[in-house]
Amino acid sequence: MDDESRLDRWERRSDLPLGIASLVFLGAYAVHVLAPGLPRAVHLVFLSLTYGSWGLFAVDYGVRWWISGTGPRFVRRQWLDTLVVLLPLLRPVQIVRTYEAMQRRHGRPRLALQARVMFYASLSIALLGFAGALAVYQVERGAPNATIRTFGDSVWWTCSTLSTVGYGDVTPVTTLGRTVAVGLMACGIALLGAVTGSFSSMLLQRFALEGEEDLAAGRTPERPPRE
Amino acid sequence: MDDESRLDRWERRSDLPLGIASLVFLGAYAVHVLAPGLPRAVHLVFLSLTYGSWGLFAVDYGVRWWISGTGPRFVRRQWLDTLVVLLPLLRPVQIVRTYEAMQRRHGRPRLALQARVMFYASLSIALLGFAGALAVYQVERGAPNATIRTFGDSVWWTCSTLSTVGYGDVTPVTTLGRTVAVGLMACGIALLGAVTGSFSSMLLQRFALEGEEDLAAGRTPERPPRE
Amino acid sequence: MDDESRLDRWERRSDLPLGIASLVFLGAYAVHVLAPGLPRAVHLVFLSLTYGSWGLFAVDYGVRWWISGTGPRFVRRQWLDTLVVLLPLLRPVQIVRTYEAMQRRHGRPRLALQARVMFYASLSIALLGFAGALAVYQVERGAPNATIRTFGDSVWWTCSTLSTVGYGDVTPVTTLGRTVAVGLMACGIALLGAVTGSFSSMLLQRFALEGEEDLAAGRTPERPPRE
Amino acid sequence: MDDESRLDRWERRSDLPLGIASLVFLGAYAVHVLAPGLPRAVHLVFLSLTYGSWGLFAVDYGVRWWISGTGPRFVRRQWLDTLVVLLPLLRPVQIVRTYEAMQRRHGRPRLALQARVMFYASLSIALLGFAGALAVYQVERGAPNATIRTFGDSVWWTCSTLSTVGYGDVTPVTTLGRTVAVGLMACGIALLGAVTGSFSSMLLQRFALEGEEDLAAGRTPERPPRE
Repeated sequence: MDDESRLDRWERRSDLPLGIASLVFLGAYAVHVLAPGLPRAVHLVFLSLTYGSWGLFAVDYGVRWWISGTGPRFVRRQWLDTLVVLLPLLRPVQIVRTYEAMQRRHGRPRLALQARVMFYASLSIALLGFAGALAVYQVERGAPNATIRTFGDSVWWTCSTLSTVGYGDVTPVTTLGRTVAVGLMACGIALLGAVTGSFSSMLLQRFALEGEEDLAAGRTPERPPRE
Repeated sequence: MDDESRLDRWERRSDLPLGIASLVFLGAYAVHVLAPGLPRAVHLVFLSLTYGSWGLFAVDYGVRWWISGTGPRFVRRQWLDTLVVLLPLLRPVQIVRTYEAMQRRHGRPRLALQARVMFYASLSIALLGFAGALAVYQVERGAPNATIRTFGDSVWWTCSTLSTVGYGDVTPVTTLGRTVAVGLMACGIALLGAVTGSFSSMLLQRFALEGEEDLAAGRTPERPPRE
Repeated sequence: MDDESRLDRWERRSDLPLGIASLVFLGAYAVHVLAPGLPRAVHLVFLSLTYGSWGLFAVDYGVRWWISGTGPRFVRRQWLDTLVVLLPLLRPVQIVRTYEAMQRRHGRPRLALQARVMFYASLSIALLGFAGALAVYQVERGAPNATIRTFGDSVWWTCSTLSTVGYGDVTPVTTLGRTVAVGLMACGIALLGAVTGSFSSMLLQRFALEGEEDLAAGRTPERPPRE
Repeated sequence: MDDESRLDRWERRSDLPLGIASLVFLGAYAVHVLAPGLPRAVHLVFLSLTYGSWGLFAVDYGVRWWISGTGPRFVRRQWLDTLVVLLPLLRPVQIVRTYEAMQRRHGRPRLALQARVMFYASLSIALLGFAGALAVYQVERGAPNATIRTFGDSVWWTCSTLSTVGYGDVTPVTTLGRTVAVGLMACGIALLGAVTGSFSSMLLQRFALEGEEDLAAGRTPERPPRE
């Protein structure tokens, strides 16, 4: 009970700093990748910001592990947090979590569940997609026979991957680029799942409402037509 | 209450003109793009029709904002309307909204909810796809190294994008063309979501009906087989 | 009432002949396309079988229209039948309808609703895909710059289209081939919808069962973990 | 009754050996494909392990057929087992089944139904994808004009197929490779269905919970906003 409340208190306090660290990470990484012409000193600043935000995440992870007192099980139970600490590209998701936590604390969210799911899913995907496009551009731009040569190409390729369209006019050719790509494909499937799931639960609810209105009005519920 | 009814009255009156303006917009834009050989004067007529219909939308948006009396919040609350005013390519959706509003006013729609969703979704996607194909053709036809060279290519590419198939035999190469493409990908995901959601809610309902029939007939409901 | 029963009687009698006509159509069309080396007389036989089965469908459509006595509304109400009469490639669907009708008449089907939906959807898609692959092969094989050169290519392309994967290594280049392709894309979306819808309704049911078992065993229903 | 319990007992005993045989099969097949430079004798060992595990599956299938005493119907009823015996590439699924059976026997699984479905679906797809990538690499590496030349290419192609992205930068060109590819496409559709179905049933449940909380708190349930 006490551990629980200490964990809660820690999370309430660490939410905002972690969200800001995520934003700083994304911004510093973007500058590092997209502005190669900056003086070396400036680049070092942005690089240290990138690693510094990583350090913050590691500290938060460590503190929560220590508070939880669950030993090695923590790593498996909080697998999403473990992944976020290990894979910096997943860090932008923290922005969405911080935003959501702040919305929740300021009273009940006003959007319907499905709208919230779609909104948070789209926001997460957009942030992950941006980080993925940066990473792929970074590793591909110098590769021989690369088809992704500008950051525009990389964003275009990311969009076609996340929507599972996959034109294939530009594709990563390096092993690291392809590894990031597989992660983006997984995001694309999750996005499709979130959108489709939201739609279908929205329809089911709406149908239940119409059925009740029919009953209230003394009409017999419509039977779906035979296909 | 009074504002509400004034808004309702305005919407009831503006539905049809806006729907017609959408149709005019789509027609005039299609002529402008597909018939480059027409005399300059005729082109100017079609161009002014295109911008005139845009103006009508802007006026409607302004009036509804003024009636609502909600100040700047209106822009965010009515974000779909805001987008339609800013992005002319979304305008054809108004045709579907007008059609739906007219159906609703002439008594309860006769189709089941899911059939309506699929019908309206398909109609919206078809109209948006047509507008998108026109826009992509317009910006791509003059680009160097373009693979989309005829309007047929553009329609073919649009279909492969909306279905998330994405062959990649023809793809946009300009930044503007790719921006429109990303919008079409989003439409494709929404289409998949609508179709899938309709299917799954239809199945769930049908199953509930079969279960009731079983109960009525004194049979025990079937348990799904273990997979 | 009487019209209804006459229609029912007609449908009960015409199901089997129409199903056989579909099979004959598909077989004769396949021979016509895949065996160009046969003597001309044999080809004429297969061609007349193809058109003869079309005629049978037209007669059935006419008789049902006449029995229904609904005038021009019949064309729109029975839009699926109208499409099947006009577009021969949709005819193989009749095989599935005949099979389903025969299953239904021999007592209640033993499969769960979702398994039936998946089975019928897969069967329809397989038959439509086969017809589509034949048609695309027929129009593409002689086209200049065609990438679909063998029937194997056409089947491979059809599979990649129906699953919405869309590699684009081989694609139709003629207008007619692309038109058939768009139809196959629509089938692919419907297939995804049917599979996904079946899965989600199956999961929902299964969950309801587990919830009841929990209640019966005096356990409190599990709350899904916060993501 | 007695047959049932004998079948149960057999299945309880054969689960673990079959799971191990699957693992051995996958490992031996991987070594056989990926290490062509090994001495011939070692290759023979791995080849015999591959076929030996196949034999084990055949024996298990035979014993269960004999115990069931259902005659030829067994082949159709247990169609999944029949497929697994005939198509060695499906064998890795047994690993998931063994894992699931062991989890079930050690008490009620602690994960929610949807999380279990997603977990088992992802694991099955990963194992099938690995087997598929091995098979495609084996048949494609020697083919003329092949674009899949390294095992990395094959894994990359498999990921793009399973996610239904389908870039088409590398694709199989042999008939056998394409046949395996069609199987992987089917897996991809099933994966999408499982993910989407899990999402939508999760949302529906969560919504039902929120509705109950609203009722308990004396709030009126939110109506979804009109879109």
